[in-house]
Amino acid sequence: MKRVLVTGATGFIGRHVIAPLVQRGFEVHAVGQTDLADCVMHRCDLLDHAATTQLVRGISPSHLLHLAWYVKPGRYWTATENLDWVAASLNLYRSFTQAGGHRFVGAGTCAEYDWRFSKLKEGDTPYRPDTLYGMAKDTTRRLLDTSARLEGVSFGWGHVFFLYGPGEARARLVSDVVIGCLRGEPVPTTAGTQIRDFMHVQDIASAFAALLDSDVRGAVNIASGEPQPLRTLITAVAEAAGRPDLPHFGARPIAANDPPCLAADVTRLRDEVGFRPVYRLEDGVAATVDWWRGQTPTL
Amino acid sequence: MKRVLVTGATGFIGRHVIAPLVQRGFEVHAVGQTDLADCVMHRCDLLDHAATTQLVRGISPSHLLHLAWYVKPGRYWTATENLDWVAASLNLYRSFTQAGGHRFVGAGTCAEYDWRFSKLKEGDTPYRPDTLYGMAKDTTRRLLDTSARLEGVSFGWGHVFFLYGPGEARARLVSDVVIGCLRGEPVPTTAGTQIRDFMHVQDIASAFAALLDSDVRGAVNIASGEPQPLRTLITAVAEAAGRPDLPHFGARPIAANDPPCLAADVTRLRDEVGFRPVYRLEDGVAATVDWWRGQTPTL
Repeated sequence: MKRVLVTGATGFIGRHVIAPLVQRGFEVHAVGQTDLADCVMHRCDLLDHAATTQLVRGISPSHLLHLAWYVKPGRYWTATENLDWVAASLNLYRSFTQAGGHRFVGAGTCAEYDWRFSKLKEGDTPYRPDTLYGMAKDTTRRLLDTSARLEGVSFGWGHVFFLYGPGEARARLVSDVVIGCLRGEPVPTTAGTQIRDFMHVQDIASAFAALLDSDVRGAVNIASGEPQPLRTLITAVAEAAGRPDLPHFGARPIAANDPPCLAADVTRLRDEVGFRPVYRLEDGVAATVDWWRGQTPTL
Repeated sequence: MKRVLVTGATGFIGRHVIAPLVQRGFEVHAVGQTDLADCVMHRCDLLDHAATTQLVRGISPSHLLHLAWYVKPGRYWTATENLDWVAASLNLYRSFTQAGGHRFVGAGTCAEYDWRFSKLKEGDTPYRPDTLYGMAKDTTRRLLDTSARLEGVSFGWGHVFFLYGPGEARARLVSDVVIGCLRGEPVPTTAGTQIRDFMHVQDIASAFAALLDSDVRGAVNIASGEPQPLRTLITAVAEAAGRPDLPHFGARPIAANDPPCLAADVTRLRDEVGFRPVYRLEDGVAATVDWWRGQTPTL
C-alpha cells in the first residue's frame, strides 16, 4: 500500500501533482488551504511542529512529498521566514521517519547551485547559493540527505528550475507578460538573452510524482533539458495572447546578478527516473494564456 | 541594561559561563536542568518551539548565548537528534529577534572545517564537515549568519576546539585517562602523535562571555592557540594523578579519519575579542584530577 502525504498541495506545483500520484496508485493525503479532488485533505499549520507530528502519526504515510515553503513573490529570496521552513522541514522529516515512513522527496531549487556555472549537473556542479532562500533549501537537502543515509531512509530531492503554467502567482515573469498582453499594455522587458530552462508546471508535478514513485536517491534536476533565451518564451506568450507587438525587448537592463545561462543537465531525470516532459512550449503557453483569459474579471 | 539568556547552562561549558557573565555586568537568565547560583533559572524544553518562544518573549533578553545541543558521548556525531537541534536553534534565533534581541552568539565546533587542513582559520579554511554533527552546526551557522546580516542583528559564532576540565562527562579523552589512572588501571591509548588544541573549560566559557560582550561578528575560533601532541596532554594528566606509568602509548591504532593535526588560528579571539586564556596546562590538569578525586565514590 503506497500512501503519500503531500505538503503544499494547493500551491502552484502541488495542485497539479494529485492526479499523477493517483494514477500511480497512491492513496493521497494532502495538506493545503482549500479542497482538492481525489485525495484526503487535511488542514495543518506546518510551522506548528507538535500539530504536524500528530498529523503525520495519524496518517502514517509510506511516502512524503514535501512541496510547501515560503514563496511570496519578491520577498522569498531574502525573507527570514526561510529559517522557519528549514525547521518545519526537518521536523516533518523526523515525524515521518519516526512514524515508519520510508521514502521522502522534497522540492529544492536550482538556486542551490553555484550560478557561475552555466550547465548545472547533480553531483558535479558545486553548491554555492547566493541567497537566503537558496541556502535554506541547500542546508535542508544536506541535512536530510545525510540523515537519510545514516538511517537507511530513501531520500530524493528535486532541484526545480523555471516553471510556468496555469495558476501561477502574479509578479512572476510569464504571468506578468500574459497580463500585460491581455490588458493591451506595453510590456517592458530585458533584452531576453538570458538562457533558462522553463518547464510547464504539469510536467514539473508529473516529474515529482515519478521521482517519488522511484527509489532514485539524492538530488535530481527537474527541468526540460531544452534551455532557450527568455526572448523566445516571452515572444511565444505574446503571440499566444495575440499581441506580439507589446513586448519591448531591451526596455529594462539585465540585473548584474542575473546569469547569462542556467541550463539543466537532465540525464538523471530522463535515464534514472525515466521521466520525459510532454508539453511543447507553444501548447503550454497557449494553455497558460487560456487560463488567464478565464481570470479576466480579476485581471 | 544587558540581559542575557543562556541555553545549556548546566552543561559542561554552560556551568562555567555564569560567573564571567555576571562579572561583565549581565543580568543572567539561564535554561538548564538543575539550579545554578547568581542567575535566574528557567526550565524549558528547547525542542518545544512554542514553549521556547513564550520563554524568550517573557524574558525579552538583549543577548542570547546558545550553548545547548545534543552531545551524548559516542552518539552525537551521527545522531539524527542533530536535526532537532538545528530546528530548535533556528526557532530560538527567530524568537529572540522577534522579541527585540540584538546580539546572538552560538556554540559551533572545529568539526565544521575541512579537516584536510591542519591550521584552521576563520574566513580562510573552507568548511566541509565530515559528520552529521559538524554539518548540523555548519548549516545553523550559515543560516543564522546570513539572516542576521539581512536583519541587522549582531551574530557571533564560536568554533569550539578541544576542551577538558572539571565536570566533563565520562567516555571523553581526558576523563577516561583520569578515571583509569585514579583506579590504577592500565590506560591503553594511541601513539598520541595527533596535534590538537586543548583549552580548559573555564577559559572556553570566559571566551564565550567575552565574545558575547563584544560586537565581533561571524565565526571566531575558541581555542588556546597552543596546539600540542595528545601524548603531552595524556602524560600531564597521568602525572597529576600520580600514575605516569599507566598510559600505554601505541596500544590502540589511530583511526583512519583522525587527522594528524588540527591547530587553531586564534588571531580573531586574541586581537578582535581581546581574550587570552589564563590556565596553564599543568594547572588546568591538576584542577581536573582534583575534581575527579572528589567524585571517587562514583568512579
